[in-house]
Amino acid sequence: MSVNDNYTVSSCFTDVGCPKIAPTVIANHVGFNDFQASPSTRDKRNLNPCALIKPEEEDQGARFDMTTRNLHQVGKGISKGINAGRINFADKHILSAYIMPLYWKPLDWAIIEATAVTEEGYTVPGASVGATPEIVQSAEKLIAEVNTRIPSIHSFTPPNRQPYVVTHTQDRIDLTAIPIGPDRVVALIEFTKPDNTGTIAPENDSSRAIARHLIEFLSEEVDSGRLPKSLLSLQRGIGNVADSIIGGLAEGPFKQVRVWIKVLQVSYDLVCGFERGLRDLPIDTILRCFDSGKLAFATATSIRFSPEGFDQFCENWATYKDRLLLRSQQVANSPEIIRRLGVPAMNTPLEYGHGNSTYALSSRMLNGIGGSADFLRNAKLSIMLTPSNRLTKTDPTRISCIAPFASHVDQPEHDLDVVSTEHGLADLRGLAPCERAPHIIKKCAHPDYRDVARGYYDQALHECLARATGTTYAEECGEDAYWVVGEGYYEGGQVGSRFGVAV
Amino acid sequence: MSVNDNYTVSSCFTDVGCPKIAPTVIANHVGFNDFQASPSTRDKRNLNPCALIKPEEEDQGARFDMTTRNLHQVGKGISKGINAGRINFADKHILSAYIMPLYWKPLDWAIIEATAVTEEGYTVPGASVGATPEIVQSAEKLIAEVNTRIPSIHSFTPPNRQPYVVTHTQDRIDLTAIPIGPDRVVALIEFTKPDNTGTIAPENDSSRAIARHLIEFLSEEVDSGRLPKSLLSLQRGIGNVADSIIGGLAEGPFKQVRVWIKVLQVSYDLVCGFERGLRDLPIDTILRCFDSGKLAFATATSIRFSPEGFDQFCENWATYKDRLLLRSQQVANSPEIIRRLGVPAMNTPLEYGHGNSTYALSSRMLNGIGGSADFLRNAKLSIMLTPSNRLTKTDPTRISCIAPFASHVDQPEHDLDVVSTEHGLADLRGLAPCERAPHIIKKCAHPDYRDVARGYYDQALHECLARATGTTYAEECGEDAYWVVGEGYYEGGQVGSRFGVAV
Repeated sequence: MSVNDNYTVSSCFTDVGCPKIAPTVIANHVGFNDFQASPSTRDKRNLNPCALIKPEEEDQGARFDMTTRNLHQVGKGISKGINAGRINFADKHILSAYIMPLYWKPLDWAIIEATAVTEEGYTVPGASVGATPEIVQSAEKLIAEVNTRIPSIHSFTPPNRQPYVVTHTQDRIDLTAIPIGPDRVVALIEFTKPDNTGTIAPENDSSRAIARHLIEFLSEEVDSGRLPKSLLSLQRGIGNVADSIIGGLAEGPFKQVRVWIKVLQVSYDLVCGFERGLRDLPIDTILRCFDSGKLAFATATSIRFSPEGFDQFCENWATYKDRLLLRSQQVANSPEIIRRLGVPAMNTPLEYGHGNSTYALSSRMLNGIGGSADFLRNAKLSIMLTPSNRLTKTDPTRISCIAPFASHVDQPEHDLDVVSTEHGLADLRGLAPCERAPHIIKKCAHPDYRDVARGYYDQALHECLARATGTTYAEECGEDAYWVVGEGYYEGGQVGSRFGVAV
Repeated sequence: MSVNDNYTVSSCFTDVGCPKIAPTVIANHVGFNDFQASPSTRDKRNLNPCALIKPEEEDQGARFDMTTRNLHQVGKGISKGINAGRINFADKHILSAYIMPLYWKPLDWAIIEATAVTEEGYTVPGASVGATPEIVQSAEKLIAEVNTRIPSIHSFTPPNRQPYVVTHTQDRIDLTAIPIGPDRVVALIEFTKPDNTGTIAPENDSSRAIARHLIEFLSEEVDSGRLPKSLLSLQRGIGNVADSIIGGLAEGPFKQVRVWIKVLQVSYDLVCGFERGLRDLPIDTILRCFDSGKLAFATATSIRFSPEGFDQFCENWATYKDRLLLRSQQVANSPEIIRRLGVPAMNTPLEYGHGNSTYALSSRMLNGIGGSADFLRNAKLSIMLTPSNRLTKTDPTRISCIAPFASHVDQPEHDLDVVSTEHGLADLRGLAPCERAPHIIKKCAHPDYRDVARGYYDQALHECLARATGTTYAEECGEDAYWVVGEGYYEGGQVGSRFGVAV
């Protein structure tokens, strides 16, 4: 192990497909020898994760201050390091991880998970592909952990800078394994440890209500001929609301649905709802969705089954393998394909008034933007789903998720077509900001906030028209949302004082 | 002319290629008959422009309140109608105009400019293609104005939802004319009136300094092997700074440069600088750039030559026609191609701290976002060029264009790699917000604002670290910029009071 080694943990998306052996061994080795305590940076080791990885892996590195720079994060330990200022967090769209080698020094080591390493020098990814092709390409030395527990899932690498000839969700376009230079491989580690995918966030009344509004909207789009019954290639992001089971889809005019998403989750998944009542079944629901014929095809950059679901999947490999396709994140999040296929995309912001996906209470970084903007920016239909308000430690009436101007902006209003909360759905297509604001107030805001929101809008309207800046009374109202109150909402009263309103 | 007719003026980009006869005739007819004064909406006529059109055309419609809805605007009359609240302005990315028929009621009439209408039922566009293919497709009836003054410039329509097989700037991928149903054509109007493209904004010390920093940066990218000497397919937006002649490019290691842009402007154009001293030559400079061999190929959705330049272009048609390719805006702004070609994109915001391209002084709408986000979001290198401060009517010290948190957000910081002002260039690639802020302060801020900016940053850093929200001291600082002062800058003291700072 030479000085200044940069380890990069790869082949992960969410918490599946992460290398499970080497990062722990390395972190313990570093911790045992107290390398990071050395005043000389020459002695320090970095364990910098690429894209999404398993919380434990992140935290192993963070525990010994081995992680100095990060693109996306999910672990509590690493989040603490970021918010304490020890780890630099450069939040990038998932898609953009490919330019990582330009950002950082070249990677000394990459640690990847595989289901096979072939004699011809190819590595076959496991349950997730992610940025593995790019990371394999840019690393000097490789450690491959070969998971012999699950079958070899063949995937492909993106054909660099040639068109992605994908015109249907199910189109395969390239190799089924990633070429590596075998002389770079310094270790092959066989293991059978499963991914620990944990338990499932339960549905609730709010998520069911949001689902109902969405189903109604999508049904109208199908009835009007603007969407086919297959819903083109439906996408939904990760998050409690977007992921909640949309049981009502079973009642809509949908058929042979296809999905084009980042992470295919076994449970609390949109697609599970296609079969009525599926939410009450065990957590291998998506496999039943396939069985029932409601779901025709699914493509993603990783699958995140429950441990039992993974076992079932492996046992019935022949049944599912031709209806599921894993792609690299460069392809899964490709603006080219998202746009060509006309993906309807759904994501969940923390607050809306422009979209804020990352900063809770305007100040604490959560997980980063992920692929939300990759999809919302290029989708045929960009949909934001959020509860109208959320719990907070200090405010007994909850805080509103509909804000006049989000405290942080990840997705500008230009990228958004539809906003829905449990109270209703606002179709904003073609509307100017001054039309969007009252529409969202009426349809989506929580009743506790509706009057003050409307009052603020009317006041801004009056003042802006008086000085002939008429399109921007909505800007004053936060572009296409409106004023919102809630003690403790904006820490330090920043936005409150901005608008001179304190309720 | 039936009631409730929706006229749509098409085939324009900036102020070239606009229908020149029919809109005036129709507007005068409506004005003469006082249709718009009728209390019944049944009697009203709409003249709604699609995408970018000529200011006079916009204003003709606005004069009689015929324009009710708009996607992008440049005329003063229409801007007045928008800011007075009479016209609804739904600001969309140029790329997204294609979904317009979903937003509005189907178009009754479309008025387009052509250079030929063939017997087989194709219309050949003139100096701009823009959204003509989509508008022709969705309109019930067509009025084609055939400009016989200039040669037929063959272009192509986008192949709907198939890959755009463009792997080099110069690749042609489709038809050279737009198919129309001849039975829909209700009028063909022959004319020879030229486009009135007006005069040229002059260079100044500030734009030359920004250009110098940019040249230095691009030269380093070429020297390091991250960009080829052709600069891949360089893009620059419209605006005083981005458009200013970058004379220094002639001194860099660049060769056989190719450009992939929206509007190819004859003068104050980036490419003009490739030949030293070209800025002092007449306004047909781009043609000389071709002649000199500095510019190998240019593609755009429209060309905007001076009247003399157009004449010279027509006279030497054979010389230029194979090095210039006009495409529909769907192709010119395609995320697919921008990403595949690795376009380095340059645009000019009004202020930066996230990018704000549209709202001057936080409240008055200018022209809309145009294609800025289409390029910045998908580019290999996203570059923002802005003077460090701008003139204002009320502030003798000018106001800073570098803000802690822009008063309106069009391009989130996740989409931006480089910011430059006349004082310096900040390379932000791979940096976290907490690193970006001081870097921009040091490199780009105007000296008058540097100390107060740094002071604000330090204060925010201190406060956020104290409550363990460490990555967001930059968020408090506006994500990757910092505090800025200037009397009259934020109308009503909104942002000033937000941060509790008043200088």
